[in-house]
Amino acid sequence: MHSVGRVLGEVSGLLSRPPAESVPVLDSLGRYSAETVVSSFKLPPAPKSVVDGYAVRAEDVEPASPGAPVTLRLLEGVLRPGSTEGFELPRGSAVRVETGALLPVGADAVVPVEDALEEDGRVHLFRRVARYENVSLPGEEYEEGVPIVRVGDRIQPHHLSALVLEGRSHVNVFRVEASILNVGDEIVGGTYFRPFTHFLVASWLRSLGFRVTDVSVAPDSPEAVAEWAGSRGEWLVVILGGTSMGGHDFTVKALESLGPEYIVHGLALQPGKTACVAVKGGRLYLAASGLPVAALSTLEVFLRPLLRRVGLKVPLLPRVKARLTRRITVKAGVVGFARVRVYREGGTLLAEPVMLGGSGALASLLRGNGYVIVPEGLEGYDEGEEVEVHLYGEVEE
Amino acid sequence: MHSVGRVLGEVSGLLSRPPAESVPVLDSLGRYSAETVVSSFKLPPAPKSVVDGYAVRAEDVEPASPGAPVTLRLLEGVLRPGSTEGFELPRGSAVRVETGALLPVGADAVVPVEDALEEDGRVHLFRRVARYENVSLPGEEYEEGVPIVRVGDRIQPHHLSALVLEGRSHVNVFRVEASILNVGDEIVGGTYFRPFTHFLVASWLRSLGFRVTDVSVAPDSPEAVAEWAGSRGEWLVVILGGTSMGGHDFTVKALESLGPEYIVHGLALQPGKTACVAVKGGRLYLAASGLPVAALSTLEVFLRPLLRRVGLKVPLLPRVKARLTRRITVKAGVVGFARVRVYREGGTLLAEPVMLGGSGALASLLRGNGYVIVPEGLEGYDEGEEVEVHLYGEVEE
Repeated sequence: MHSVGRVLGEVSGLLSRPPAESVPVLDSLGRYSAETVVSSFKLPPAPKSVVDGYAVRAEDVEPASPGAPVTLRLLEGVLRPGSTEGFELPRGSAVRVETGALLPVGADAVVPVEDALEEDGRVHLFRRVARYENVSLPGEEYEEGVPIVRVGDRIQPHHLSALVLEGRSHVNVFRVEASILNVGDEIVGGTYFRPFTHFLVASWLRSLGFRVTDVSVAPDSPEAVAEWAGSRGEWLVVILGGTSMGGHDFTVKALESLGPEYIVHGLALQPGKTACVAVKGGRLYLAASGLPVAALSTLEVFLRPLLRRVGLKVPLLPRVKARLTRRITVKAGVVGFARVRVYREGGTLLAEPVMLGGSGALASLLRGNGYVIVPEGLEGYDEGEEVEVHLYGEVEE
Repeated sequence: MHSVGRVLGEVSGLLSRPPAESVPVLDSLGRYSAETVVSSFKLPPAPKSVVDGYAVRAEDVEPASPGAPVTLRLLEGVLRPGSTEGFELPRGSAVRVETGALLPVGADAVVPVEDALEEDGRVHLFRRVARYENVSLPGEEYEEGVPIVRVGDRIQPHHLSALVLEGRSHVNVFRVEASILNVGDEIVGGTYFRPFTHFLVASWLRSLGFRVTDVSVAPDSPEAVAEWAGSRGEWLVVILGGTSMGGHDFTVKALESLGPEYIVHGLALQPGKTACVAVKGGRLYLAASGLPVAALSTLEVFLRPLLRRVGLKVPLLPRVKARLTRRITVKAGVVGFARVRVYREGGTLLAEPVMLGGSGALASLLRGNGYVIVPEGLEGYDEGEEVEVHLYGEVEE
């Protein structure tokens, strides 16, 4: 049994980052940036009025007061939002501006419309304004030198918007692709229930932004599994089933036959101990149990942290602290993945371990809304102990 | 100025739920279920072995001990995982089972392989087993009567898997569609920066599972806006810009001209006070500022809670408690939307208000990672006060 932490460290050192590809910015939501983009200009590019009024040079209106207005020459027209006026405001004059308009060169403040009176090509201003009063300054809305996205960031709405603003039509993102094989004679030949673990894994990967290019099934045969695995070029190849520690380790034999640079079979993880992890050509082969909870344990406890170590900032689940209503027990030296249902009682959050069944218990995922990871060094948590729960569902209020 | 809480209440009472449509289960990830699906059977359907060994009737092996084995007749063959055996285990006999195999009718326990010895069509069993020892019971993995998804749930990997297991090929989901118009002469005619707020809103909606069917621009004209708005059939129609409280309320006039059953202009929200909310035929028309932070404030403080009230369980952002490094001030009677940057110092989380610029400050979204909502009844929070932050980005560790 290999320590989860050690294998994480070893594998993250051997994996390459996924290949990059250029995609239109408007299609980049939820992808992982393969480049760092830094903002390259300022907004507003010049002082911008935040009121309707008259752009002035502040020094020109310094003596103004309600009883003794300053009168300036009024230029023709109105400056409106959206345009840049190249002209310079002559000393001793003012120009009408709407909210959002950029000031002309030389103007540095705005007298609000309610403190002014127009008359015959002039404007009487009944209030002094300080320099930069009623304007937003260059760079207040958008500045040079601010990182928009960094390598590995998952592109969110505000990132995408800033890439549009920067004038980028395309952005380089990682091509995070995966293929999935579900192995088992009973899956190929038919069984008393519909196999679904491959769809659980495919959906989990899709929800993290992976493109899942193939979801197949194969019989319990090292040749069939090796043939499929050998034909895949995705950065991540997932195989479910055929990983038992005893004789039914078809998948492990198949991965060994590929001649990987690295392979371990057996993680100190409960459930999920039969997982097999291999690296070949910088790409990851992950074999996990075909039982849904064991497979999910491998994804949550091993794959999610691994993706982050490799530099893909896959989202973490929201976490809350809650008190256990019953003890959770895990074998010594093994990381535990315990499903719980978090609920509120009075003012406190309680976490009830969902004990149903074993690693095959899809019901435990439906009844629960979170999981607790018990680290290797602990044999569990006591009833009443406060634990950190990773929530995949909502806490009912 | 209309209270956000009051408008939320009024509008949620007038809106219809979005129309429903049937989609393949395998394409339903991230959609909102329009039906409640309850599990209809048990797994395993019969006791299932959790070890390799011999299925027996527990009563037959009651006298067994290491010194005095019980000998049973051994049936031919091996029961393997995945198949259901219709036959009944005769009294006084045993059958080989692999881990995961269902027991034949009448068998109720499994003697592990290491406690048995085969000889000439018989098997000597050196250990008694209790009833149901080494088996998982019917219903432990999956039970009847467990809700798989409820109306409004956002379909996640474990939901999708259970729908596959139920044999569902299709599921009814809400068709949450939106169209977006960005209004402004400067947007149509060209300006000194690339307009992007419509892409911010489109991405925000897409990240919640909306299908955005149209993203257009229009000049500052009530006719143009009304023509576009009148032609849209989406459940949600968003218009950005043209909502000022003064003369530039083209969008408000356009929405009024549609003859809505409900319309309010002006929300007690900072930024975002110019929003206009209308309902016509059970569909929502939401007009918001074209400035990015004001638009986002409207989406986060008004639209996200509204969607949840209508019964779509759009995800909430993760929340953390953090201490303010500076005071946040909001006008009395107004809900505040304050951007912050949460960071860790020593053992505590601190939230630094990102003061940059006003409602147009995309930079504040790039520099921050969360926001604080100041309720209507407060005029802000003091420096050092603990506040709840909604995180849209990660806290750097």
